[in-house]
Amino acid sequence: MVKVISSALQIHKDNKGKMEVVSKVPLENNVDLSLAYSPGVAEPCLEIVKNPSSVYDYTIKGNLVAVVTDGTAVLGLGDIGPEASLPVMEGKALLLKRFANIDAFPICLNTKNVDEIVNIVKAISPTFGAINLEDISAPRCFEVERRLREECDIPVFHDDQHGTAIVVGAGLINSLKVVDKKMSEVKIVVNGAGAAGIAIVKLLVELGFDHIVMCDSKGIIYKDRPDGMNPMKDMIATITNHSSLKGSLKDAMTGADIFIGVSAANLLTKELIECMDVDPIVFALANPNPEIMPDKAKEFGVRIIATGRSDYPNQVNNVLAFPGIFRGTLDVRATDINDIMKLAATYAIASLIKDEDLNEEYIIPNAFDDRIAKVVAKAVSQAAIQSGVALLK
Amino acid sequence: MVKVISSALQIHKDNKGKMEVVSKVPLENNVDLSLAYSPGVAEPCLEIVKNPSSVYDYTIKGNLVAVVTDGTAVLGLGDIGPEASLPVMEGKALLLKRFANIDAFPICLNTKNVDEIVNIVKAISPTFGAINLEDISAPRCFEVERRLREECDIPVFHDDQHGTAIVVGAGLINSLKVVDKKMSEVKIVVNGAGAAGIAIVKLLVELGFDHIVMCDSKGIIYKDRPDGMNPMKDMIATITNHSSLKGSLKDAMTGADIFIGVSAANLLTKELIECMDVDPIVFALANPNPEIMPDKAKEFGVRIIATGRSDYPNQVNNVLAFPGIFRGTLDVRATDINDIMKLAATYAIASLIKDEDLNEEYIIPNAFDDRIAKVVAKAVSQAAIQSGVALLK
Repeated sequence: MVKVISSALQIHKDNKGKMEVVSKVPLENNVDLSLAYSPGVAEPCLEIVKNPSSVYDYTIKGNLVAVVTDGTAVLGLGDIGPEASLPVMEGKALLLKRFANIDAFPICLNTKNVDEIVNIVKAISPTFGAINLEDISAPRCFEVERRLREECDIPVFHDDQHGTAIVVGAGLINSLKVVDKKMSEVKIVVNGAGAAGIAIVKLLVELGFDHIVMCDSKGIIYKDRPDGMNPMKDMIATITNHSSLKGSLKDAMTGADIFIGVSAANLLTKELIECMDVDPIVFALANPNPEIMPDKAKEFGVRIIATGRSDYPNQVNNVLAFPGIFRGTLDVRATDINDIMKLAATYAIASLIKDEDLNEEYIIPNAFDDRIAKVVAKAVSQAAIQSGVALLK
Repeated sequence: MVKVISSALQIHKDNKGKMEVVSKVPLENNVDLSLAYSPGVAEPCLEIVKNPSSVYDYTIKGNLVAVVTDGTAVLGLGDIGPEASLPVMEGKALLLKRFANIDAFPICLNTKNVDEIVNIVKAISPTFGAINLEDISAPRCFEVERRLREECDIPVFHDDQHGTAIVVGAGLINSLKVVDKKMSEVKIVVNGAGAAGIAIVKLLVELGFDHIVMCDSKGIIYKDRPDGMNPMKDMIATITNHSSLKGSLKDAMTGADIFIGVSAANLLTKELIECMDVDPIVFALANPNPEIMPDKAKEFGVRIIATGRSDYPNQVNNVLAFPGIFRGTLDVRATDINDIMKLAATYAIASLIKDEDLNEEYIIPNAFDDRIAKVVAKAVSQAAIQSGVALLK
């Protein structure tokens, strides 16, 4: 770990960041300049004036994603501010390039005001084909995303919510095949009601999971709970916990088939696992230290364990989802990234592991599986077309 | 010209724009990802939290310029909007890379409101090391630049004003050597009171030119002129025209040594030139068609003619100035691009032509002269240090 720390610092320092902007056209003489810049550049400008949608033909817009943050919920580090978040945003932008050949650019905002964030993103949107919201803290992230999806004419996606939810969904689809249980029957506990937890619950409901209970630091979330509620938890209370269960995390865990933690390190004890049904499935996603380490989980009888870590099997890694989702969205010039597209991405990721290859240690494909972004992009494009949000066919 | 048009359209369409974002670090396996992204990326983030100025060591910020426009005064095309301006902004960004190895990124805003532009640029400034304002129409551009220079903690430069002024200043310094006249003695007429004209006059005053008269469509600008004035012209009236000349452009031209046009095609007639003193110097900068074509100017007795065109000698091309200015500014982390730095850039550009090489057709160096950006950057860095705005020495 010391080596990772010093190496990570070194590569950032040696390169002064990780990205650069380069030309796709020659700029070696006056003729080159007269085509790429004045006077030739006036021609694509005039074409775009005549036909506004040709901005997608003559500029970078159609392949360009803004990675927008206010630096308030960066990794597990919290509110570290826009400057300190820049290394993460550069990295995120480069993952889009590496996995889906998308150009992306970090925009780190020094405001936390929802109205200002919304107005700024709308104002800078002419340059971009889509917006990826990143590391904006809950509950502001929900309103920022909701308003931008309504008000912005390019698609907007908050990866911390949906990217995580989609990979979790894919992992659960495959896990159920391994343990031979049914979506409509299994009991799921989601612990942690931040951005990722809320998005996971919403996606699981869309997928058809019927028995979900969400917990936060005050225990089980139920309708009209007197303390620690907010509008998102109110919404969660209406779409989950149909038997109006009340009580602690332990009460929720009794008889549960699946535990999904987006909460805190080492929170999942032997005692809690022993409350669960046969063949327990645990997604312990706290980062970098999960709710339970995989070795311990296995020791306590967990059948399938997934974490956010690359040094154990079954890594829940957003990079499986967001590059292909943006690729598919940009490819058909979708105006939104809707639930149908998110579900399509979920099934596409799950489908990459054939039934005969599925096992306890291989329910989620590896990030460097070359097929992923292509398969996800294709599924997302088709879903965009079918759901009527694609401007290209 | 038809060929330039079709070729320019073609290179924009073939490449879908001109720039791309690429990685400077490897991203080929889990170890690479653990350094460039999670978990290793947390280390530079934490270093920046501890020491905010280390954002310049660990990220792209220190070499990154935002090219910001609202699309209101693009080339000679006018208010074509933010999307249609994107080809120009991509081109501008790439010139910074080509000539000064600066990464730059277009930000095209869909607002023309000065307050909003100022607030947006301030809000996005954490990602950037400097701001280049581009193609924002007068008089809003003056207030946008003034307020951003005051309120933003990174340097802000409006190239349409100062870039042009600096190259004109350099060309005039060299022209006076050719015709053997003195700055303090020559009479200059600047025709056109837009962004470039105003900036040219201000820089010429700083350089030590004493006898300047500015004209607009209503004729000579003088203090308390009853019509067509605005705050910038009021300012111009106080720093020029010390003999309170009134009248038409023709009145201004009588006995003038130098004419600088930032006005309209073909405006400079034989009659006007014949009013001028011996060895007339003409900078005819209307684009793409100058106030007078060089062949005609020579025919009518002009000794030195400069234009914005690359197909004639003495091209007044901003690319001589802005790459080196931003390079020098970023190199010493200057907090402002002040008048002293602009004058330093002017003299640096002029100095690139040795006295023995100076002649009527060679008063301004060629854009592809490899020395330019380096020499300008060095001069600008030194001026920043000497004027106390450099954070690095």
